[in-house]
Amino acid sequence: MVDYELAVEEGDNPGVRAMEVAREQTVELPAASYAAELEDAIVGRLESLAPEGTAGRWRARMVYSAETVGDDLLQLVNLVAGNVSMMQGVRVTDVELTPGLLARFRGPSFGARGLRALAGVEERRPVIVSAAKPMGLTSAELAERCAQLARAGVDFVKDDHGITNQTWAPFRERVPRCHEAVERANQATGGRTVYVPNVTGPIDELMGRLEFVAAVGCPAVVITPMLSGLDSLRWIARRFELAIFAHPAFSGGFYAREQILAPEVLFGLFFRLAGADAVIFPNARGRFPLSDEACLRTVERLRRPLGDLAASLPVAGGGVNAQDVARWTRRYGWDVGYLVGSSLYAEGDLEAAGRRLVAAARELHG
Amino acid sequence: MVDYELAVEEGDNPGVRAMEVAREQTVELPAASYAAELEDAIVGRLESLAPEGTAGRWRARMVYSAETVGDDLLQLVNLVAGNVSMMQGVRVTDVELTPGLLARFRGPSFGARGLRALAGVEERRPVIVSAAKPMGLTSAELAERCAQLARAGVDFVKDDHGITNQTWAPFRERVPRCHEAVERANQATGGRTVYVPNVTGPIDELMGRLEFVAAVGCPAVVITPMLSGLDSLRWIARRFELAIFAHPAFSGGFYAREQILAPEVLFGLFFRLAGADAVIFPNARGRFPLSDEACLRTVERLRRPLGDLAASLPVAGGGVNAQDVARWTRRYGWDVGYLVGSSLYAEGDLEAAGRRLVAAARELHG
Repeated sequence: MVDYELAVEEGDNPGVRAMEVAREQTVELPAASYAAELEDAIVGRLESLAPEGTAGRWRARMVYSAETVGDDLLQLVNLVAGNVSMMQGVRVTDVELTPGLLARFRGPSFGARGLRALAGVEERRPVIVSAAKPMGLTSAELAERCAQLARAGVDFVKDDHGITNQTWAPFRERVPRCHEAVERANQATGGRTVYVPNVTGPIDELMGRLEFVAAVGCPAVVITPMLSGLDSLRWIARRFELAIFAHPAFSGGFYAREQILAPEVLFGLFFRLAGADAVIFPNARGRFPLSDEACLRTVERLRRPLGDLAASLPVAGGGVNAQDVARWTRRYGWDVGYLVGSSLYAEGDLEAAGRRLVAAARELHG
Repeated sequence: MVDYELAVEEGDNPGVRAMEVAREQTVELPAASYAAELEDAIVGRLESLAPEGTAGRWRARMVYSAETVGDDLLQLVNLVAGNVSMMQGVRVTDVELTPGLLARFRGPSFGARGLRALAGVEERRPVIVSAAKPMGLTSAELAERCAQLARAGVDFVKDDHGITNQTWAPFRERVPRCHEAVERANQATGGRTVYVPNVTGPIDELMGRLEFVAAVGCPAVVITPMLSGLDSLRWIARRFELAIFAHPAFSGGFYAREQILAPEVLFGLFFRLAGADAVIFPNARGRFPLSDEACLRTVERLRRPLGDLAASLPVAGGGVNAQDVARWTRRYGWDVGYLVGSSLYAEGDLEAAGRRLVAAARELHG
């Protein structure tokens, strides 16, 4: 079932408009050009239609046949939002899968609980994630940042998502250095910080990078699915025993105001279905314009029961200040993560700043 | 060089705003938190800044270091539009690569000329593309539609982009049937119509599907890069001797009004760099809201000289009426393609409608 919010001009029939959307997503033909029996079997059924708050807005609930999707995640996304993403005045606000369709997707391998176990994060407090940055530092310099954050007790230290395989810090040099730096820090502190390398890159290097990461001993990776393709997330989750942090870069066009996909559908459903163990989303009041409500809905969707799928860890990022973590935790509850980067670096002494943040997180039980 | 169009609020400094965007795309840190020497080497240089037509709009031209990209297409896209895609009031209106960076991308293997050669399309007239549809037909029924369009003399007959591997027409059954139907029609008519199967699907099945297509003898494929990942396009172009039609589905959020990527950058540059031999774009005055000017810029960018890269064939789709092809050709010139689907099907006799369209195209020299 897909809920579309439709802008319908005065004088236009909202039911006709809803069926046009459904045809666009399936047969790509007007009604007169295909056999009537395809209407129910393929085009789908308009289950309900009701005016929305604003004048000229309607909520249309379409039920499509699961057979139009098969077991193909990309075709699911295409059916929901492919061509209509290019229209004006069409917005996907909710998607629910039948149990049969849901059973074709396996979702996160580790999930929020598995991620906590990897880094030894106790239940009932938020997970703290930070990043080794900026782009342009050498592998040794990045490794030193990783070590500082590990000594501070941060749970996960990820590569900045723009750090890939540039000459200053080539992938096969950076990953073992950063991992070893974190491991040494762990030995010194007794902590269990996990370094999370970014594997986003050319499709024909992805397998090699993942095998390399696994051989180095890193248990988790970062990938940007809107760059690498959403199905690469699913493929990694099925093919490798690696936990996955999904980064939201290049997703913005989809959920920006009035645009095609509500962020809770993209991040809260599609990223989880594909297998993200942690979903980094651009938190409200940060550098990106998600609303408080959209963030809350995203967090809720990542955690709600969904067939046999594990819950993903929602990780608020994109400008979360260390000072605000308590406030957000009152809103989201304890079972979230925070990606805090710039605000720790801005304090000057990265290790001390990280240590204060971790101490604060240990006091939080949302 | 990247041109950003920025919305700058009254009282804000447009130059400061431009550098915030550049930092977001590179170091992801405020200026105080990284060494000054990274500013030029990594963050990039604001080359020019000028007010745009509308009040509060500024055009900022940033020059980034090519080393931040390496030879990674996804990192190029990420650098240009990754995080800022999630901002409001930031739009990429132009991108130019240095010759050195351009040389790292090989672009189309066939290009517009190679595509014409595949289907024996004479120069100086538009290429006619149609589609076998709708979803829900069996392989035999789709093959019959292919045969009708081939007998009509259509140059390329593609799968509808939502037809993947559903039970009604499984991929490995549909592709040989449709290809053989077209070949038989060609033998009867002496024509050279090419059937173009859609290979978009799970990443771990992509290689198998491409090998299968090549073994069947199809010389070209359809892929939807915004679903499968833009780099899958590049990988197919490098790994297989198959011409590629890139479909625009799921791209809409990016270029919709006020959104992050001008369509001429996404379709006109990124799709060509990645290796699309034909780029299907949603034509103006069709079902999707691209402007006349944006379409003209897209067509122009796909054809303009670009290092050693071949020109891609711009293919106007998304609601092109057979009756309007002459008018569009006066606008675009002869070196374009038209994807005409619904309007042929609406005429009832698909073969006769296709034949009329092909005859009309042969008269057009833009």
